[in-house]
Amino acid sequence: MSRMRSPFKLNAIFKILGSLLLVESFFLVISLGIALLYGEGDSLAFLKTIAISLGLGLLLRLLTRKVVNPNVGKREGYFIVSFVWVMFSIIGALPFFLHGGIPSFTDAFFETMSGFTTTGSSILNDIESLPHGILFWRSLIQWMGGMGIIVMSLLILPALGIGGMQLFSAESPGPVADKLHPRVKETAKRLWLIYTILTVMEAILLVFGGMSVFDAVNHSFTTMATGGYSTKQASIGYWDSAYIQYVIIVFMFIAGMNFSLVYFGFKLQFKKIIQNEEFKAYMLITLIVTVSIAAILFLNEGTGFEQSIRDALFQVVTIMTTTGYATADYLTWHPFAWTLLFFMMFLGASAGSTAGGIKTMRVVVVVKNSIAEFKRLIHPNAVVPVRYNGKPLNITIVNNILAFVVIYILIFSVGTLVMLAAGLDFLTAVGSVATSLGNIGPGLGTTGPATNFYHLPDFAKWVLAFLMLVGRLELFTVLVLFSPIFWRK
Amino acid sequence: MSRMRSPFKLNAIFKILGSLLLVESFFLVISLGIALLYGEGDSLAFLKTIAISLGLGLLLRLLTRKVVNPNVGKREGYFIVSFVWVMFSIIGALPFFLHGGIPSFTDAFFETMSGFTTTGSSILNDIESLPHGILFWRSLIQWMGGMGIIVMSLLILPALGIGGMQLFSAESPGPVADKLHPRVKETAKRLWLIYTILTVMEAILLVFGGMSVFDAVNHSFTTMATGGYSTKQASIGYWDSAYIQYVIIVFMFIAGMNFSLVYFGFKLQFKKIIQNEEFKAYMLITLIVTVSIAAILFLNEGTGFEQSIRDALFQVVTIMTTTGYATADYLTWHPFAWTLLFFMMFLGASAGSTAGGIKTMRVVVVVKNSIAEFKRLIHPNAVVPVRYNGKPLNITIVNNILAFVVIYILIFSVGTLVMLAAGLDFLTAVGSVATSLGNIGPGLGTTGPATNFYHLPDFAKWVLAFLMLVGRLELFTVLVLFSPIFWRK
Repeated sequence: MSRMRSPFKLNAIFKILGSLLLVESFFLVISLGIALLYGEGDSLAFLKTIAISLGLGLLLRLLTRKVVNPNVGKREGYFIVSFVWVMFSIIGALPFFLHGGIPSFTDAFFETMSGFTTTGSSILNDIESLPHGILFWRSLIQWMGGMGIIVMSLLILPALGIGGMQLFSAESPGPVADKLHPRVKETAKRLWLIYTILTVMEAILLVFGGMSVFDAVNHSFTTMATGGYSTKQASIGYWDSAYIQYVIIVFMFIAGMNFSLVYFGFKLQFKKIIQNEEFKAYMLITLIVTVSIAAILFLNEGTGFEQSIRDALFQVVTIMTTTGYATADYLTWHPFAWTLLFFMMFLGASAGSTAGGIKTMRVVVVVKNSIAEFKRLIHPNAVVPVRYNGKPLNITIVNNILAFVVIYILIFSVGTLVMLAAGLDFLTAVGSVATSLGNIGPGLGTTGPATNFYHLPDFAKWVLAFLMLVGRLELFTVLVLFSPIFWRK
Repeated sequence: MSRMRSPFKLNAIFKILGSLLLVESFFLVISLGIALLYGEGDSLAFLKTIAISLGLGLLLRLLTRKVVNPNVGKREGYFIVSFVWVMFSIIGALPFFLHGGIPSFTDAFFETMSGFTTTGSSILNDIESLPHGILFWRSLIQWMGGMGIIVMSLLILPALGIGGMQLFSAESPGPVADKLHPRVKETAKRLWLIYTILTVMEAILLVFGGMSVFDAVNHSFTTMATGGYSTKQASIGYWDSAYIQYVIIVFMFIAGMNFSLVYFGFKLQFKKIIQNEEFKAYMLITLIVTVSIAAILFLNEGTGFEQSIRDALFQVVTIMTTTGYATADYLTWHPFAWTLLFFMMFLGASAGSTAGGIKTMRVVVVVKNSIAEFKRLIHPNAVVPVRYNGKPLNITIVNNILAFVVIYILIFSVGTLVMLAAGLDFLTAVGSVATSLGNIGPGLGTTGPATNFYHLPDFAKWVLAFLMLVGRLELFTVLVLFSPIFWRK
């Protein structure tokens, strides 16, 4: 056990964080370009932020220039993977705060963490009043977050052994140190390429539908990230266009797929997609829930036939993929419909996508294990393994996944109590915690699709921002930092 | 695997059900005695019911008189253990229905199933108007149900391999057939004796506090069963007596303990009680939640000091032990307080008690396994077992318990959707399902402690009655009957 007790390699951590700050600076420079292009008074805020980000990044690199090959272990891995989101959010909040578009730092941090974690819960009351540079940065944050999480969930988290993530990694790179680099870099490049191609494709299709180039790029950023930030206060509902809505539905659905499968799609190996158990379940759940809600809209609310299907499909896909755009206010529907959507907030789309939540793959394993339990009852002496994509799962992996689901629900329960203590009503508390932990966007009560998170007390915003990060990093990555055994010498 | 495929032994099943009907007839005769004593017009209803119950019981025994030793297997075991509650409830509903005190059979069945499962949710709007014989039968049903579940959960369900019940059985009788009888009968007698002694003790203490003998006996029946039926519409709140409330708190708490531990208490082996992990957690949770809620009542609602503690303690113990008496309407408290009580509905008190819910023991295992998961993350090559009462648990048992918790939450979610489809509002749906599945009594919304279940649609009442049974029999026992593999030849 003393293997892990090597001193915490601060030098290596600083070097990696320094490099990552240079990456953030690069994206800030792009946003500065947009700000300069439109010239709406937000350029100075970007310049100041770039100075801080670039300065800090270069300083860290300079201090650690003697660290040639930063061979970090698992403990450093957990720390970096968690802390980089906090660091990015603090720096990323500066343009909003320094420009004055979001005068409270709490609000600016909430908006930025909600962006990087691809949650999409907003505190903005008048989105259209903000300059283009600021709006572009807000969307770009989500795009960066989405890119980051695909690489993390397919390449880094499985190596850290988080909640059964081993099952859906693109590769199984083994220990983080040394072996990681060559193969992982290649895979990461491939994933980023797919992500970028899809973003461009969506933007072009949206421009065809009548969106301005600016809006199209912003929305394709936040669709592929399953983030859900919009350049309009009315979200996608602003465009009363069936074409635009269907395009976004298709790309949200793709963004909710495991990116290894999307890669197979690009190689035209559709059989591999259709045979994937998680994909089948993802399709099936989307279909069943859409039909149920469309039936309610058509029969109960008197909505037209095509619109019932479209409104249901859009809301189901936006919640299931944890994007969080809105074309309708589901809170005005029958309680059965919005409670169904509320339960979907826990599901999430596929592992290895930009979506949050528990993930369909874990739900599949949990359901299969429940069925196996019945078989075990009737045949107590038989070995009844849970099979996933044809292979029997080791019971420790099943246990790991069950523990993940239980801890997810525990955090949800404790979070709800904290929100109630902060003064929120029951529905708002339950909804805001579920939507933050699942990285979705809209909640219930006073944080529904037609409202936002501005009116919540500061304390609640910090707690929700923390829950976004916990959910985004598959719970364990963040929580392990708070366990005494992690820090014990 | 063909071991289990022997033909379903209907003869043996009929013989056992016949014997059990004779037991129910015996208790009906006692109630008839009370009815005759008070002479309030309910005797005929009891006479008719006894004729049916006794007639059917004797007929079944007569038809199966050639079955000498009913050696039932596991499959028959599941069937009998589930079906006996349905049979008892159908027969047990007849006095209410035939007397006319509950004119709807749906309502009478709901009230009786709620009684036998020791849930305590009621449809009665004017309890005091009913004759003493009927009220006595209503309380006796709960007492029988409590007695039945102690024997089942300590002796029968562990042998059937249900949800980790092996861990808290009084004995481990191995397979149901043949070996069961001698040892189990002895243990069952011992448990019944303790149960009866405690009932008598409580009744005497309540009479000292000024309750009538009739009320004292009825309430000691429903306390020891953690059932919660009262002879008063205002429940225990009717007696504005701190003494009575504290006596009931103590006996509810004892009834929520594992009866093997209570047995040690009778033998003055208190060390064995204090060292038990489930008991420690049960004490600790009760204490922490009581202090939290008392603080809210004292600081936020302006309740007096002693009354804050008493109201909090009573409501916490009545919910945690799944009894369901009321001395205050928690729905009028701060949402934090009643949401905390709502979450307690899932906990339940100890395994091997008359309480429902998930049970503290399972929660302890789940929490310990979560902590172990963090250790496993940091020390991936170390074997980190979950220990319970000092012994390492087999991972299949941990898996079994995790699956139980996940299935519990799945059933709760599906049940909530069904209630919403039946037209209930969100809070009422959530509360009525949690309280039925956990065998508690009061829920949220329009089914709180100050209201009842009368106004729900018939469909909702049948579903809730089914959920009571599913929860009472630790989920698997009932659900396995609906799985295709159970019936496959």
